[in-house]
Amino acid sequence: MKIEHIKIGPGMTTLQLIEEMGKSGVLGAGRLHRATKLLSEVTCDPETTVFLSVAGPMVPGGLRKIIRDLIANGHVDVLITSGANLTHDLLEAFGGAHYREHKEDDEELCQMGMGRIADIYTKSEDFEVFESKINIILSKIAKENDKLNIREFLTQIGNLIHDPDSIIYTAAQKGVPIYAPGLIDSMLGLQLWMFTQENQLTLDAAGDMHELSDIVYGSQKVATVILGGGLPKHYALASNILTGGVDAAIQVTLDRSEAGSLGGAPLEEAKSWAKAKCSSKLVTVIGDATIIFPLMVSGAMELMDKTD
Amino acid sequence: MKIEHIKIGPGMTTLQLIEEMGKSGVLGAGRLHRATKLLSEVTCDPETTVFLSVAGPMVPGGLRKIIRDLIANGHVDVLITSGANLTHDLLEAFGGAHYREHKEDDEELCQMGMGRIADIYTKSEDFEVFESKINIILSKIAKENDKLNIREFLTQIGNLIHDPDSIIYTAAQKGVPIYAPGLIDSMLGLQLWMFTQENQLTLDAAGDMHELSDIVYGSQKVATVILGGGLPKHYALASNILTGGVDAAIQVTLDRSEAGSLGGAPLEEAKSWAKAKCSSKLVTVIGDATIIFPLMVSGAMELMDKTD
Amino acid sequence: MKIEHIKIGPGMTTLQLIEEMGKSGVLGAGRLHRATKLLSEVTCDPETTVFLSVAGPMVPGGLRKIIRDLIANGHVDVLITSGANLTHDLLEAFGGAHYREHKEDDEELCQMGMGRIADIYTKSEDFEVFESKINIILSKIAKENDKLNIREFLTQIGNLIHDPDSIIYTAAQKGVPIYAPGLIDSMLGLQLWMFTQENQLTLDAAGDMHELSDIVYGSQKVATVILGGGLPKHYALASNILTGGVDAAIQVTLDRSEAGSLGGAPLEEAKSWAKAKCSSKLVTVIGDATIIFPLMVSGAMELMDKTD
Amino acid sequence: MKIEHIKIGPGMTTLQLIEEMGKSGVLGAGRLHRATKLLSEVTCDPETTVFLSVAGPMVPGGLRKIIRDLIANGHVDVLITSGANLTHDLLEAFGGAHYREHKEDDEELCQMGMGRIADIYTKSEDFEVFESKINIILSKIAKENDKLNIREFLTQIGNLIHDPDSIIYTAAQKGVPIYAPGLIDSMLGLQLWMFTQENQLTLDAAGDMHELSDIVYGSQKVATVILGGGLPKHYALASNILTGGVDAAIQVTLDRSEAGSLGGAPLEEAKSWAKAKCSSKLVTVIGDATIIFPLMVSGAMELMDKTD
Repeated sequence: MKIEHIKIGPGMTTLQLIEEMGKSGVLGAGRLHRATKLLSEVTCDPETTVFLSVAGPMVPGGLRKIIRDLIANGHVDVLITSGANLTHDLLEAFGGAHYREHKEDDEELCQMGMGRIADIYTKSEDFEVFESKINIILSKIAKENDKLNIREFLTQIGNLIHDPDSIIYTAAQKGVPIYAPGLIDSMLGLQLWMFTQENQLTLDAAGDMHELSDIVYGSQKVATVILGGGLPKHYALASNILTGGVDAAIQVTLDRSEAGSLGGAPLEEAKSWAKAKCSSKLVTVIGDATIIFPLMVSGAMELMDKTD
Repeated sequence: MKIEHIKIGPGMTTLQLIEEMGKSGVLGAGRLHRATKLLSEVTCDPETTVFLSVAGPMVPGGLRKIIRDLIANGHVDVLITSGANLTHDLLEAFGGAHYREHKEDDEELCQMGMGRIADIYTKSEDFEVFESKINIILSKIAKENDKLNIREFLTQIGNLIHDPDSIIYTAAQKGVPIYAPGLIDSMLGLQLWMFTQENQLTLDAAGDMHELSDIVYGSQKVATVILGGGLPKHYALASNILTGGVDAAIQVTLDRSEAGSLGGAPLEEAKSWAKAKCSSKLVTVIGDATIIFPLMVSGAMELMDKTD
Repeated sequence: MKIEHIKIGPGMTTLQLIEEMGKSGVLGAGRLHRATKLLSEVTCDPETTVFLSVAGPMVPGGLRKIIRDLIANGHVDVLITSGANLTHDLLEAFGGAHYREHKEDDEELCQMGMGRIADIYTKSEDFEVFESKINIILSKIAKENDKLNIREFLTQIGNLIHDPDSIIYTAAQKGVPIYAPGLIDSMLGLQLWMFTQENQLTLDAAGDMHELSDIVYGSQKVATVILGGGLPKHYALASNILTGGVDAAIQVTLDRSEAGSLGGAPLEEAKSWAKAKCSSKLVTVIGDATIIFPLMVSGAMELMDKTD
Repeated sequence: MKIEHIKIGPGMTTLQLIEEMGKSGVLGAGRLHRATKLLSEVTCDPETTVFLSVAGPMVPGGLRKIIRDLIANGHVDVLITSGANLTHDLLEAFGGAHYREHKEDDEELCQMGMGRIADIYTKSEDFEVFESKINIILSKIAKENDKLNIREFLTQIGNLIHDPDSIIYTAAQKGVPIYAPGLIDSMLGLQLWMFTQENQLTLDAAGDMHELSDIVYGSQKVATVILGGGLPKHYALASNILTGGVDAAIQVTLDRSEAGSLGGAPLEEAKSWAKAKCSSKLVTVIGDATIIFPLMVSGAMELMDKTD
């Protein structure tokens, strides 16, 4: 099949650009086109349960609304993420923010009470508000529960906050479960631990697996969209081992594969473990998720509109 | 300054998406937005000479038309590229093509007469046509010249082919010079060498510098857009050392900086060498150029339309 | 200071090579030399508690013995790792192995019952032995415990196996705590969950923090050696926030920093969060940990012998 | 085949460490072991012509002596490199040096007359000496020659300098040809061009191909060792297309393959182009060449001694 060259016209939509990339069909442009088509396909398909796995600073990095909207619109059925992304969602839900364009070095930032994630900055005053507000919520939760699994804990938090822009709030409203197997390793986890120094509240580390396996067994097909690596990527794939693996997967990453870390592992590898079915559709896009994911989602949304 | 979250709407244009990325302003999304604005700015500015430096398989990889159009529309004033990209431009000008979706392994491909560049494939029959046609052109050039610099050689080729989609043809038509300091290291270079076994035609390696220095001295400002690293990146920056460096630069690359290779070097490093002015505007976007460059150009074109 | 060129002689020791790299002092060679010196320094210093954080397939990838020996020899005081590395340690403790040089593709491997991690292979028969043996151990543990934190759980496993080459066994013998905040997301975690379907045994996700904070508060100085990113890297740094951050850190990674993921984040960033002290000594080596870590440890061991 | 774990002992030699890595045989450790064995094999084999291709700042970065010694000891038969590495070799031959541990930012460095390559620094005063000395040499060469190919030009320079530590000097002494197809794009190239403003001296860009093809046709077997990508990598492989490709190749790189650039391209791809024979032995090591290459050469030298 011949490669056609990408054409650019005035005021083209994101989907028009991605379809031009599909005519070329090679290198990153080809991968992005295949990923967009697959995203549209699995999102439209009523038989497919869509997992979204999110590692890296995607909430502080500007993707909070996109993730929230995917949940609100019923495009994502299960969210798996890090404790850090959930902490940053709550930080904003409690009135805090993330900041940019500070030029100070890390030692100066520390003295100013600012934390840095690449070119994203946080303020300790926002974390102070976070701490006081999350403690009120933890008290409410502990009043009614002795032991919770992590998903239940997050749903309860979602029910006790009132920010329509929040991922945790929206997920609770829509009944979309959030799994965060590494939750404890975050500011939210730290607050929980400090709370449990004087209060009784146990998070059951293995508790979510029962529920998650029910979701997997109850799904005709599963597709997983993976931003970054880490625990969320592994959990999203490994939880599907029970039924022979996912039917489709898309990953966006800058990690590389040679050193064997899961973050950069090719999706094909998941087939050997029965974490992806042999017939599964798998697309990897190499790139920065804050560019690739908005572009892909925007194109897929337009494609879905056209397909309706 | 607060980070705002990226919003996605139905049928949004590429510029609308990039402007949303600018509201976030961090990580890759922020870089892409700054690069797009800068590209629009330098392209619009009549005082700025725009260099485009292209390494990696951008012509076989689907960007031939974008590069050709930038030249045709007067948005690029100087092109610096590899012998390989010029060879592949001629391959298509002579009726050949690039192909995709071959699954054979490299030993099988070799037996089938197909060359591979990642997931791009070439056919030996197309190269045979290339060889016979370029030899006719070389004969014509050698009839009138003993010694040429590389830029003159490429202009003469451009004047002897008739493909409006060709970069070399269009550059010749528009009087846009093409520099290819490593030309000899390509199939075009190999053909030239074989031709010179029995014919007289010398390419003067240092010959372009005189002309290129005139362009640099004759420019009020220079901006350079850099896709990939290699010789083209170095040449684009180093030729501006004569006047204290470029005024603006954008680079798109997946190379990394730690091992010191120029390909992944931060643009800021160019300031120490007076290859970029101290006051220069510099933006690096980490990513696959076949995704980033079409998106950036599309956004910049729309932005220029709006600015007019 | 002038860069001296690296000299290579016949039969030189790893330390002699690293010291030559130190005379150059730049790029990767310089980083490796600084990391080796720092590793030797913190390991020798009786006042420094050494954390080792291990992500990626380091146990299946040939580093099991090095990690085990560092623990056995008192060079590592705290180990933080993934559930996967612990699973693979037990797989070998139970008589299984890891394999290499299989050329089949992932679908064939799946049919053969082999899982793949880059060029490392596992056999399902080894996992079957793992499952039956770990279940016996889980039963023994559940007989005496209702609720455990993860560290206690791993110590109890260590006390119930008898493989002197095992990391878990050796750590239990030497009283070195192992933390694995993401334990549940592994084959070991999966077995634990299946066990808890019919048995009572709760792993308390937040339970380790109390003990870990005691270690941090009880240490005059903390140094952390970080192989790969993920949860182990974050946990190793974040647990030291309580005392203003680590005093020294070495990381070996191939991840890159631009997309903001913690795996590739520069160690300097940790200063802004008070996860590394402002005065701390921080060295990053970009590379494959299966090359860099054995070389660095070998050099540091020789340096310690010389220093004694 | 089972993976054995790497063992580290006191005062082990670099070869002993690499042989331990070979017992593991996977990930980077396995690659490094295979590369070291192959390097020893091709270097020992009297029938194999060894090309060394060097891109990136290897001469300023501390590898000058290793490259010089490989040439002096007859282990390298052909050197292909960038104009920059040759410039930096001459800079030192003329009494200059490379420096480290400057903390200033790039704008300050520019004002101080210092150029930066990652954490390597140069001084303008050294470049001034370079300019005056190279001009004397150019005058001498121009007195006797009108037109030279690049290899001859470099040999003549080598014959006119007297630094036994110099790569160019040593290569001239030993009759080892140096090819630098992109020579003109360097400070040496710039000086040559400025010289030719007022003097007659033409570098024939295609001139080297005749001689290089004689070497390739005259070799029973060719092996190429590739540090970094760029023009040197392409030239080393492409010049062997005339005889169906190299018989063995080793590459050390941090570039990645997905975007299609040659720098990160897998060596296997060269088979499709007949730049590597179907039966060829190919090993890629992912890593920083300033760590990997000294380690590999040191191990290979010891292995050769043992084999003798």
